[in-house]
Amino acid sequence: MHSVGICGSDVHYWQHGRIGDFVVKKPMVLGHEASGTVVKVGSSVKHLVPGDRVAIEPGVPREFDEFCKIGRYNLSPTIFFCATPPDDGNLCRFYIHNADFCYKLPHNVTFEEGALVEPLSVGIYACRRGEVTLGSRVLVCGAGPIGMVTLLIAKAMGASQVIVTDMISSRLEKAKECGATWTLQVNKEGPQEIASKIESLLGNKPDITIECTGAQPCIQTGIYATRSGGTIVLVGMGSEMATVPLLHAAIREVDIRGVFRYRNTWPMAISMLESKLVNVKPLVTHRFPLEKAQEAFEVSKKGIGLKVMLKCDPSDQNP
Amino acid sequence: MHSVGICGSDVHYWQHGRIGDFVVKKPMVLGHEASGTVVKVGSSVKHLVPGDRVAIEPGVPREFDEFCKIGRYNLSPTIFFCATPPDDGNLCRFYIHNADFCYKLPHNVTFEEGALVEPLSVGIYACRRGEVTLGSRVLVCGAGPIGMVTLLIAKAMGASQVIVTDMISSRLEKAKECGATWTLQVNKEGPQEIASKIESLLGNKPDITIECTGAQPCIQTGIYATRSGGTIVLVGMGSEMATVPLLHAAIREVDIRGVFRYRNTWPMAISMLESKLVNVKPLVTHRFPLEKAQEAFEVSKKGIGLKVMLKCDPSDQNP
Amino acid sequence: MHSVGICGSDVHYWQHGRIGDFVVKKPMVLGHEASGTVVKVGSSVKHLVPGDRVAIEPGVPREFDEFCKIGRYNLSPTIFFCATPPDDGNLCRFYIHNADFCYKLPHNVTFEEGALVEPLSVGIYACRRGEVTLGSRVLVCGAGPIGMVTLLIAKAMGASQVIVTDMISSRLEKAKECGATWTLQVNKEGPQEIASKIESLLGNKPDITIECTGAQPCIQTGIYATRSGGTIVLVGMGSEMATVPLLHAAIREVDIRGVFRYRNTWPMAISMLESKLVNVKPLVTHRFPLEKAQEAFEVSKKGIGLKVMLKCDPSDQNP
Amino acid sequence: MHSVGICGSDVHYWQHGRIGDFVVKKPMVLGHEASGTVVKVGSSVKHLVPGDRVAIEPGVPREFDEFCKIGRYNLSPTIFFCATPPDDGNLCRFYIHNADFCYKLPHNVTFEEGALVEPLSVGIYACRRGEVTLGSRVLVCGAGPIGMVTLLIAKAMGASQVIVTDMISSRLEKAKECGATWTLQVNKEGPQEIASKIESLLGNKPDITIECTGAQPCIQTGIYATRSGGTIVLVGMGSEMATVPLLHAAIREVDIRGVFRYRNTWPMAISMLESKLVNVKPLVTHRFPLEKAQEAFEVSKKGIGLKVMLKCDPSDQNP
Repeated sequence: MHSVGICGSDVHYWQHGRIGDFVVKKPMVLGHEASGTVVKVGSSVKHLVPGDRVAIEPGVPREFDEFCKIGRYNLSPTIFFCATPPDDGNLCRFYIHNADFCYKLPHNVTFEEGALVEPLSVGIYACRRGEVTLGSRVLVCGAGPIGMVTLLIAKAMGASQVIVTDMISSRLEKAKECGATWTLQVNKEGPQEIASKIESLLGNKPDITIECTGAQPCIQTGIYATRSGGTIVLVGMGSEMATVPLLHAAIREVDIRGVFRYRNTWPMAISMLESKLVNVKPLVTHRFPLEKAQEAFEVSKKGIGLKVMLKCDPSDQNP
Repeated sequence: MHSVGICGSDVHYWQHGRIGDFVVKKPMVLGHEASGTVVKVGSSVKHLVPGDRVAIEPGVPREFDEFCKIGRYNLSPTIFFCATPPDDGNLCRFYIHNADFCYKLPHNVTFEEGALVEPLSVGIYACRRGEVTLGSRVLVCGAGPIGMVTLLIAKAMGASQVIVTDMISSRLEKAKECGATWTLQVNKEGPQEIASKIESLLGNKPDITIECTGAQPCIQTGIYATRSGGTIVLVGMGSEMATVPLLHAAIREVDIRGVFRYRNTWPMAISMLESKLVNVKPLVTHRFPLEKAQEAFEVSKKGIGLKVMLKCDPSDQNP
Repeated sequence: MHSVGICGSDVHYWQHGRIGDFVVKKPMVLGHEASGTVVKVGSSVKHLVPGDRVAIEPGVPREFDEFCKIGRYNLSPTIFFCATPPDDGNLCRFYIHNADFCYKLPHNVTFEEGALVEPLSVGIYACRRGEVTLGSRVLVCGAGPIGMVTLLIAKAMGASQVIVTDMISSRLEKAKECGATWTLQVNKEGPQEIASKIESLLGNKPDITIECTGAQPCIQTGIYATRSGGTIVLVGMGSEMATVPLLHAAIREVDIRGVFRYRNTWPMAISMLESKLVNVKPLVTHRFPLEKAQEAFEVSKKGIGLKVMLKCDPSDQNP
Repeated sequence: MHSVGICGSDVHYWQHGRIGDFVVKKPMVLGHEASGTVVKVGSSVKHLVPGDRVAIEPGVPREFDEFCKIGRYNLSPTIFFCATPPDDGNLCRFYIHNADFCYKLPHNVTFEEGALVEPLSVGIYACRRGEVTLGSRVLVCGAGPIGMVTLLIAKAMGASQVIVTDMISSRLEKAKECGATWTLQVNKEGPQEIASKIESLLGNKPDITIECTGAQPCIQTGIYATRSGGTIVLVGMGSEMATVPLLHAAIREVDIRGVFRYRNTWPMAISMLESKLVNVKPLVTHRFPLEKAQEAFEVSKKGIGLKVMLKCDPSDQNP
């Protein structure tokens, strides 16, 4: 292994030992945003040879079940997933992974970019579920890491306007730097009032809302804000039950779609990085050698910077 | 005009003078489930001649706006719609309507079948939004008129199993007669418990749920019941806000889609009636001449029978 | 194994030793339309137990490659496929197959119906590629076995009119018995003339054409016949190069789509058979015990009857 | 009217009096790539006022027929279309057009950019029919004006690699300047050989081919080149009949789709121009006042430069 990013869920398992129904019952290796170098391949592997640099897709179906057969393998209930208990992650020196889920990196894509394909995939999949395309007007709720990645991807897909909302002005400044057409700091306004402000800024209601906070008022805002016939994608995870203006969505045919992780994103993400369509390098703000993993997790836990990278290869700590 | 069915919304406007934001402010003609005979056409009309028997689609766009251009004309905010205030309906002897929304009836389709294309359209559009197809397993919540029509259409589209739920056993018996594979009488069980019973009966979770009640517990049941990657279509109209297990839908990628009336259903419905793919004649349980309209509305208001037809042509009161 | 149907391709390999680039270079077991009883399962198989009656999907991906990941596993270049050289088929007493591609048969579906899921799948997949739905007008070119199955499936999906063309009147009579709305015997007319006749019979151009002959004049007819914005599905396999009115298709946006075998059809086909939506039992016209395989192949080669079944279980030769 | 671009079809009608079945039988005004300023609006027009600067979509349905209802209004057989006989175009000082097909230009979009929405629309629609999206690998056959516009749009939609082929090296240099990842000069090689070179350059077969020449060898190349499960879009118009490897397309499920003009492109194109996602200004190489129209047509006929603009407003000849 070469570079492994720390994700919020890694920190959560470390601190709380569980996320929802997924409970850590025995020691578990963390890490699922990863890249490394092939050292050995199985006899039937043809697309990789030792020495190849690869990005690793962490979810690998265990069966070829009904979900895999229709191309929605992320929904397979028996899927293996790095660092979702009880499955070990890949924050270590050496790691065995299904070769079909290891993707060769072009020479001009770094290991860290390879590791960042995982968070990028969340944004790609959200935008794809929302059917973002040329000329789309997109509302992104939340300017955290997922919101930022979603913003970058929406722009790369040809969105003509992207408006980002958040409560914290520094995050919105960052969004502006990353290409947001508009930013809107929200505070105590009601959802309908915020929806109204968004429409004023854009000159139209957004075609697609990508909700990255999970907060009930934001989901409500998203429903009110989205134009008739549009889509709201729920990426942020909030409480089990939510009170929302469902009738308002239904009679205006605003579809509500969720996402579970991602699927079919690695090849296009790598292709995009190879072509320099998006620059993710600035997302990495901290690097630690694997031996200092605990220190790295402390930094990540404190929410300092954006992405903390662990460098697993003692002989190569470069990006 | 020949035959005009009475819809629940007609009764509602008559009794309450409003539905949501639509308020009757001046006398309004009711009726939007209609068929009749062409007596005169405009000079540029080429597909109809006097004497043609036609079914009437009640919604006619006033502009060729952005929604019309993408084929979602039902969402056009300025659409004309029969008997939605302030637009007059067609429960009368003579009526002028846009010829592009008058569809010629084949000789073997009766006027009443023509009028029933309207309620059929609700079912067709709901099933289309849910993407019912060959082999689909479908849950229909509610065995009222819309639930029944949805059941008929789902079967015609090739659904292999349709399960219908309701609180009233007599309605479920009717559903069974109309071809429901399974019926389930619900009472005070919780949504998850009902979802569980549905799965047991079908041997699988349903691929698609079509919710025709608007009741919050039914929407909740629909979300729990639908298989991962499936769709719940909201047809029934309930309260403005609803409390639902949105996270449960999101992480299992159960899409939530509403419907607003219908679009592009008349030709296929007429084609279907011409081919005898579905028998809607038994839905008509009462007939009154136009002069006895008030009596007809009283019957409809009492909920006796299923569909009450008004016969507007004094010289032909046949079906 | 219990029942294995003989397919035209089995006969072709037997007689000619090759189909296109697929060449039989060493002895190969034939057979890919099959059903049987599980006698043993691998340790990680959970959905099957010995004694389960199953239908067998003959194509099993060897890798989880880019095609599998998007749900188009039939296009995987390294797929295993029964009786496509060099892969052995399942016309034998005992056979090992990937459990994920063995589908449990409900008690009311016979072994022979299970074996017939394979030819049914060709029709299901063709109709799905053509997007046949409620009210569709469908042209099926060719009233051979594939044309017949396509007709049955199109009707089950809600097609309101299906017109079948062929040169042989006896085949068209059979099509009429199977539910064709119209049949048209073609002879030496030009493609445009035939297209014109089809439009006259239907009262409209067909929305979808499913071409099951592979003959160039039929492909041409299909292009001329299909309505603007419709689809022609190429199922029949003809010569490498074809001369067709491509411009006529292009400027009328008639999409041309091919099929390669099928994907994701077994569960819906079994569900359909369980629900008695289609009756395939009459398709079987001959049965032979496995010992008389050569005789069975001779019958099949002569084109007598429709489907010849081989019965592989000496203790149970029932349907 | 302010700015009207000259299209190849304008020149063709001028020189030959016909294109296919469209024959100029009486004097006809040319021009369909146009923008201007509103001087008067009908009483029911609400989205425009005199003084608004607008881009004009040249095709306006005369009826709300079956094609309009499903959002494919470009296929409406009775559509009005500027400068397609017998309908007059808008190369004049004043012109009346349906307000629903006049789109307000934002202040930062010039009249000429407004006129260029028409050729841009061809590229947008082709890419949309091909489903170009983030990470797509695209082959564009032909580096003429349509090929160039297609290239620009494919990039704006997130295509990671676009390869452009042509016989003329100067055109390919221009393509390179416009962002082509690869260019390939073709000469007398066979279609399969060219397909092979394309695969070598991309490292993969292209997902989508957009054929802009209409030449038979290019269509053949496109079919051989496109990856299994991909799409070839036929934009270029060649001869009525074409000989192509249809079987090769069919069994690899390479869909063949045509385009007829465009639909639903103006709003997204204007939104894109407003956001500066694409720079079309360099496409205009010549400008003439309306009085010098004949000179302008001579230049256009000679194929000098790219786009010739006619300036119809004597008081404002600016871009």
